[in-house]
Amino acid sequence: MKVSDVGERAIVEFARRICKSGPRVKVGIGDDAAAIDIDGKYLVATTDMLVAETHFPRGTTAAQMGLKAVVVNLSDIAAMGAEPLGLIFSVGLPRTLSVRLVKDMMREMDRVARSYGAYVVGGDLDESDEIIIAGAAFGLAKKGRLLTRSGARPGDLIAVTGELGAASAGLKILLDKIPVRGYERLVRAQLEPRARVKEGLALANSGSVTSAIDTTDSLAANAWQVSRMSRVKMVFDYEKLLIDPAVKKFSHSRGLNVDDFALFGGEDFELLFTVRPSGWKKVQRAFRRLGTAVTLIGRVSKGRGVFIRRRGEMKKLPDRGYEHFV
Amino acid sequence: MKVSDVGERAIVEFARRICKSGPRVKVGIGDDAAAIDIDGKYLVATTDMLVAETHFPRGTTAAQMGLKAVVVNLSDIAAMGAEPLGLIFSVGLPRTLSVRLVKDMMREMDRVARSYGAYVVGGDLDESDEIIIAGAAFGLAKKGRLLTRSGARPGDLIAVTGELGAASAGLKILLDKIPVRGYERLVRAQLEPRARVKEGLALANSGSVTSAIDTTDSLAANAWQVSRMSRVKMVFDYEKLLIDPAVKKFSHSRGLNVDDFALFGGEDFELLFTVRPSGWKKVQRAFRRLGTAVTLIGRVSKGRGVFIRRRGEMKKLPDRGYEHFV
Repeated sequence: MKVSDVGERAIVEFARRICKSGPRVKVGIGDDAAAIDIDGKYLVATTDMLVAETHFPRGTTAAQMGLKAVVVNLSDIAAMGAEPLGLIFSVGLPRTLSVRLVKDMMREMDRVARSYGAYVVGGDLDESDEIIIAGAAFGLAKKGRLLTRSGARPGDLIAVTGELGAASAGLKILLDKIPVRGYERLVRAQLEPRARVKEGLALANSGSVTSAIDTTDSLAANAWQVSRMSRVKMVFDYEKLLIDPAVKKFSHSRGLNVDDFALFGGEDFELLFTVRPSGWKKVQRAFRRLGTAVTLIGRVSKGRGVFIRRRGEMKKLPDRGYEHFV
Repeated sequence: MKVSDVGERAIVEFARRICKSGPRVKVGIGDDAAAIDIDGKYLVATTDMLVAETHFPRGTTAAQMGLKAVVVNLSDIAAMGAEPLGLIFSVGLPRTLSVRLVKDMMREMDRVARSYGAYVVGGDLDESDEIIIAGAAFGLAKKGRLLTRSGARPGDLIAVTGELGAASAGLKILLDKIPVRGYERLVRAQLEPRARVKEGLALANSGSVTSAIDTTDSLAANAWQVSRMSRVKMVFDYEKLLIDPAVKKFSHSRGLNVDDFALFGGEDFELLFTVRPSGWKKVQRAFRRLGTAVTLIGRVSKGRGVFIRRRGEMKKLPDRGYEHFV
């Protein structure tokens, strides 16, 4: 049996079963990040590896690679409701790579990390055939404030930050070499994403958010993860989804299905979360202060799976999203 | 200017200059691991990436790769005098790799981590042409107990744990396809190293150890790092070095220079440290309890560089060691 026969999810499941937990391990393999009890607080840690050929569309600059390596890791910290502290990077570089590009990459890593209140504090260098950036981020979460994928309960509201679909539409434009004009923002969403760090902290501090996950794979696939880990049914209301207007325009003009971006497109790095109805107003107020859009898109109920209500009809959403590991 | 023109050390130096420090950053880029002040303690974090083609001699099993990925990271935690808590791994796997090997690797990672009191708590999977294991480890160090590379002072004694040269002699045997018989221990030292975690904690708790580093690159190269970062001169006494007897036997039988292993060979993962003379007895006693050899091999003095006294003659040691990044 080969790796390609079983796929990423099965391998993660093996890892989850094989790796035993310890007395201080609050959250182990299977969430956005791990959480370890360090007396009074949780140390939250995550790792994400980006491999140039697989993860970066041609034309991505070294600075954009650096930016994305920081953001994908901080996004996981944000999804746990933790305050980021530091980042460390194991970087594989081809011998023939220009030193100027390496410096551009480092400068951007430093700048972006600091813009989120975190610091690049260490790393390891290796030689490799293509650029590999394996980042790890760590932060602190308050006890009782940790956001996981497993706390959603029937009756909770489902909400998501920002607008949907821009990053994957941007990827489509880049991969298919579609003229960028008019869609600059979509391409930028793909190449220069941001992490919802302040938003994650606001959710944690609200005290009424029961689960959270960042939309790395897709709204559908990440909702499926919450459904499986919380053992609940997630029901979306299609009409309530806040889809990026440029994504709609792009889809219509090209005869593409907007759902492929809004529901099944990855890398928006928004926060999909569930919240007790009594806490929704407070979350809304916090987001107004942050200037970040947040939309109620559905409700948690008993059962399993992810469903969407559209023109009165209820359909099961396929567990499909953007995965780098095929 | 290309990466290969400037080399690893120059790139690390760029990173050190580019990445700004923050108020909580006690130790940033340039030491075995980073240390961040988290109120009352230091969070210590490190990352090390292993790339199959570069880091593992042909014939290394998947389990041995897993073991080494854990040990190289914990060794950095040990060198800071920290207690390890957890490990996370970004792993790149070829599509055609056998799932059984992946499971072997994971089982060994879990087993080895736990044998040091740490847990594998998370990871990321990607597709890659060869096996890539980017690990990150984190732990806690007590305030006032952190061991860095920069605290050595003139008058301190220099000591090192264990015996020298086995891992690099083992590597030579594997790379040159020399019959292993009689040298099984050397080959095992290469393929299945251990981290000096308890020893690092004992050094930290002694209260008199002024600097520490793990001998990843070589005794010489790692001493040079201490010399540069502590701004001192390190003087070794050749006669006092505890060289692995099998390394001596192997070198003599093959007409090889034993110094190439004992002084310039990498991956022994011993702890090279400096200690105030008044604290040496206590360190010795602690190591007797641990059952780990520890040897006084020299003295710190004013000046810079690494020197060795041999048959009354003093020579400067070249700053040479085993580096994966050429």
